[in-house]
This record gives sequence, C-alpha cells and structure tokens, in this order.
Amino acid sequence: MARIYNFSAGPSMLPEAVLLKAQQEMLDWQDSGMSVLEMSHRGKYFMAIAEAMKNDLIELLSIPENYKVLFLQGGATAQFAMIPQNILNGKSSACYVNTGAWSTSAIKEAGKYCEVKIAASSEDTAYTSIPKAEQWLLDQDAAYLHYTSNETIHGVEFNHVPEVGNLPLVCDMSSNILSRTVDINRFGIIYAGTQKNMGPAGVTVVIVREDLIGLAPKSVPSVFNYAQQAKSDSMLNTPATYNWYLLGLVLQWLKGEGGVAAIEQRNIQKAGKLYQAIDQSSLYSNPVALECRSRMNIPFVLADASLDKEFLSLAEKNGLSTLAGHRSVGGMRASIYNAMPEAGVDALIAFMAEFERTH
Amino acid sequence: MARIYNFSAGPSMLPEAVLLKAQQEMLDWQDSGMSVLEMSHRGKYFMAIAEAMKNDLIELLSIPENYKVLFLQGGATAQFAMIPQNILNGKSSACYVNTGAWSTSAIKEAGKYCEVKIAASSEDTAYTSIPKAEQWLLDQDAAYLHYTSNETIHGVEFNHVPEVGNLPLVCDMSSNILSRTVDINRFGIIYAGTQKNMGPAGVTVVIVREDLIGLAPKSVPSVFNYAQQAKSDSMLNTPATYNWYLLGLVLQWLKGEGGVAAIEQRNIQKAGKLYQAIDQSSLYSNPVALECRSRMNIPFVLADASLDKEFLSLAEKNGLSTLAGHRSVGGMRASIYNAMPEAGVDALIAFMAEFERTH
Repeated sequence: MARIYNFSAGPSMLPEAVLLKAQQEMLDWQDSGMSVLEMSHRGKYFMAIAEAMKNDLIELLSIPENYKVLFLQGGATAQFAMIPQNILNGKSSACYVNTGAWSTSAIKEAGKYCEVKIAASSEDTAYTSIPKAEQWLLDQDAAYLHYTSNETIHGVEFNHVPEVGNLPLVCDMSSNILSRTVDINRFGIIYAGTQKNMGPAGVTVVIVREDLIGLAPKSVPSVFNYAQQAKSDSMLNTPATYNWYLLGLVLQWLKGEGGVAAIEQRNIQKAGKLYQAIDQSSLYSNPVALECRSRMNIPFVLADASLDKEFLSLAEKNGLSTLAGHRSVGGMRASIYNAMPEAGVDALIAFMAEFERTH
Repeated sequence: MARIYNFSAGPSMLPEAVLLKAQQEMLDWQDSGMSVLEMSHRGKYFMAIAEAMKNDLIELLSIPENYKVLFLQGGATAQFAMIPQNILNGKSSACYVNTGAWSTSAIKEAGKYCEVKIAASSEDTAYTSIPKAEQWLLDQDAAYLHYTSNETIHGVEFNHVPEVGNLPLVCDMSSNILSRTVDINRFGIIYAGTQKNMGPAGVTVVIVREDLIGLAPKSVPSVFNYAQQAKSDSMLNTPATYNWYLLGLVLQWLKGEGGVAAIEQRNIQKAGKLYQAIDQSSLYSNPVALECRSRMNIPFVLADASLDKEFLSLAEKNGLSTLAGHRSVGGMRASIYNAMPEAGVDALIAFMAEFERTH
C-alpha cells in the first residue's frame, strides 16, 4: 500500500528519508557487519552514534554548556515524579500552571511529593485559553514553576516563554520541542518524550541546568536520579540503543532541512493554512483562543457530530489516518508535527472541503 | 560487509530472520501504509501487535493466569528499586543472594528501602560458585528472597530454582530468560531486560504474581507502581512501541524454532562444545565451578594475558566480535544467547584452536 498521511498525536509520522535510511542499514550498519539493534552500548560503533546524536541535539537547540542533556526512559510520566523528587531542594511547595490534561497529570503526580500551588489555570474555559501573565500567582518561595508548552489534547500552545522571576522554570515540551526556536537559557529543566517531533517512542530527552543536578535525597531510585544519570551519560541501565539511533537520524534530517528556525516557518505555514480552512468553513470549528492555538495539534469539531464517524471513515479511505480526537474530548484532531509534509496538510484541507460540499 | 558473529553480552545478536522481517516491514507494516514506528499505541494495528506479543510470551513460558505480564522501562536497574518499593508490604527486611556484580547492584539499591539480609554469598570465591542450599540463611520474616539466575559478568548460572520456603521468590532473569524451561509457579516476580535473549534494548519484562500487586505505598512514582502499570496494560506512559514489535518478532522466531525446550537443547549443545574446547586446551581456562557454569556467558582467560590484545584483534578480523571480558574482570567472554547460531560457536572454537596452535 502507498504510504498514508498519519495525523496521530504520537507516536506519529517520521520523515520517509529516516525510514529509508533505517531500512537500508538494518542488517549491516556502515560495514560493521551488524545491526544497530545488536550493538553493545559500550562498543565503539554505538558510542559514536550516541555522541553524534547528542551533539546534533545540542547544536539544533543551541543548548548552553551549563546544561546536561539526558536520554532517559519512562516518558513524561516518569518526569512528573522525577522533577519534584530531584529538585525540591528542601522546599515544600512547587508552582504549577494548569492548561490541560497533561498539566493536570503532572500536578497530580507532584502532589505525592510536595504542596502544589496552582499559579494559574484555564480549567474554567475548558482549557481553550492560557491565563494572562498578570493573573499568575508566583510564590517565590516555591522550588520551581512547571508548565506545559503545548497541550496535545486541547490544542493549546504557549507562543512565548513565561516570565517567572527567580523561580527555576520547568517545562514539559513533549509535543513542540524542535518545532520552534526557544532560548534554553530561560529554563531550569526541559523534558520531552521523543515520539512526536523527535522520533519513535522510547526515549525521554531531559535538559537540566547544572545547578539543579545533585539535589536529590538518597531515597530516590538510581534511574530517577539526575546526578547518577548525568554521571553515567544516561547509561546507568542499558539504554534503548535503537531508539537513540533513530532519534539521531531524525536530528540529521532536521539539520538537512535547515534546522529549527527553518522548520518553524514551515510549521507556521502548515498550521496557518489548516486554521484558515477551519475558520472559513461553516461545518468545522476550533474552540481555542487565537493567541494560543497550537501549531502542532489542531482539534476541530463538526457542527453536526452525527457526521463524525463518516468523516473519519472517509478520511481513512482517502489515506488520511488517525484523525479522531482524544477519547476524553471527542471530535477530530490533526497532529501536524515537523515530519508531516505540507502536502499532507493540503490533502486534509482538500478532503475537508469536499466533505463539507457533499454533506 | 558480511554479517559477523557478535558475542556481545547485550545488546546482542538477533536472529537474521527477525532483522529481515523488520527491514521488509519498515516503511509499510502489513499494508497499513505506515511503519510500526509511526503507529499510535492506542490504534488497532499496534494493539494487535502488542496483544500477539504478550500472548506469545505467555505461551512460550507457560505463564499461569494468576500472573500479570508487564512491559516496562528502566531495565533491571529500575526493578532493583521497584521491587522493594512495591512488595515490602510493611516488612522491614528482604533476603538477597549475592552471586556476582548484578546481585551486588540489586543489593545496594534495595538497601535504600529496607534492611538487606544476605542469605548467601559467593564473594569469597570471587563469584565462581553458588553457595550450597543448606548454607543459605532464610529469614521467613523477610518480605521476599531475591537472586540472579545468571550472572553475565562472572558466567555463573543457577541450574535449578532455589527452595526458599514461604518467601516470595524474586528473580533477575535478564540474561537467561527463554533459554531454558522454568516453572513460573515457583516465583513471586521474574524480571528481565530484553536486550539479551528477547530482542533489542528498551523493554523490561516483569512477570508478577497477582498477590504481590497493589501493595505499594502512595509515594511510589506512578510508572514504578506495579498496580498502575498492570491496570493500564503497561501503557501508563507511551510504551517503546517499536521495541515491543521487535520483541514480538523474536518470540515468533522462537516459536518457529520449537520453543523454549528446543532452544534449551541447542544451548546445552553450544555451551557444552565451548567449555570442552576450553577445558581441553592448555592456553584457555574458565574458573567457574562445573555445576554452575553459565550456558549464556562463557568467560575465559588466556594463560598468558599479554596475548589478550592480539587474540581480540585477530578474532575481530575473523568476524568474531565483542569477545573482551567485562571491564571489571578482564579476560575474554563469549555470550552465546539463543540467537547465536551453533555455526558461530564452531567458528569461535576453530579460531581459538588455531590461535593456540600458532602462539
């Protein structure tokens, strides 16, 4: 079958060039006589793959030297616990901004380890907005402030990095990392699962400022301890080697595309087109406030929800896959990460117009 | 380059049939129009892959119905903490058997959460033996007894399941799971990283008897909680989907080879040959007591250690890779897991004989 356009929120589409390269190297990586899948993580071949991957990420995000870059496991969900377990540093509370389902999960997990102070919440708007900065309650005695830069389920994205005074800023960037330029210096910790903009599932990238490393109490599990992970170069346990390799291929591809600034322009273009098509239609609508609409995840509903099933089924037949909204909110959602070609967005827009014309 | 024989202790060789299948399906899994790498973990394609994989493992190991099978992250190192965090159940101590480097790591981590009682240790023999059952100190008030069924670094393997009375028996089976038949009913928990006998790195299989699930205090991180992982079918965070798929391909291959009992016969044959070659030589020797020599990891030293470098370099040139012993013990080590063909062992034996003849 021809390859389709896959609008999954993650795991999600990968660049075809990455898949072709992985396919070509599957049985024999660069004349090594073995697959990357089979390589000892301590051997010279894999060490070279790992180092190149890490350096490419540092280059693409301009990560300053006073940050450690870790490649961990357990997804963002593990970070929800690891962060308070590592950086409370004797304090009893942390500030959280609640902009949707993922913030809510982070808040719930953090509550096991500290008092969570809600600095701001958009729950009253059903997570279709981001509270204005002047309304945020910042407690400078808290250990840090946590926010989610893009909410995949609600399609809400910060278009700026919030000002939080002297609080270390912690960000779940799972669904928009590498999709737009960002000044890493503004952050204490950035973390992101790889399965959206960076590659396949199975790796969590954690970028930690050095002063936040080494603060964990001894009771924290070793694999959860940033200092131990940093000291062992993320090889405290055997890493997910093939996932690191694929992440490296995606980063190489992104460099070839011109890097983050170039892909950001394409993302603006792709999202702009799709929002315009939705806004100009009388069948489709998107509920999110204009200034915080996500470039990555674009939810929309049909004016007549009884058409949902037919929409999804026809879309699937037209090679437009995984457009159902998250089970908690329903409707539709098009996730258009870096690897979604503009042609995929064009095909979706054309399909939506045709569906509207005929229904 | 032709594919080589890779004696890595893990990640390690995979069956060529598995690599070929993965290569063939890389861009389009079974006419889905997408790579397994790109599939939503909640979608019908991946759910089918995950279910088949789990059922194959249950079948291959004859896992009884009163056990849950989890597919987690963080390797055995995460389990070192998860086990005491989950199953102390109000008790203050746990028994550990120390048979080498991996047991030692498990003991060190458990010490964060409970009093560790060393039931037996072979440290005084430099981990070349397993203490006799009648010498073990079993404290029936402890929460459980933990042992490592195969020590990859020292090449020491239990050829039986120890009798421990009413204590739940917990086993790190990372390096010999699926290599020999075993009665799962004897165990409370079995865990194993996949990167040796089951596939690529990135998944930890945990088989837990149901009565040991649901005992964790609330402070345990969600991803570390067996009950939460069991309830969400190991999808509390996005699983390492491609690694699950590859694990499934390895299990299908093993079924095609006749299952665990059949591969065990082959493993006995492969290891028997190599030990015989070592024992009959005057250049090579293996220090491990006969009754606990590992079928999976066979360390050996050269009578003249100054030849080590040349041995390794010549072996590499002859397509026999990654034969250096672990950096903590030196010498040589041949890891010959399920996927190492008998021809690979034959090639190693022939090379060793020729090296001995010429040196």
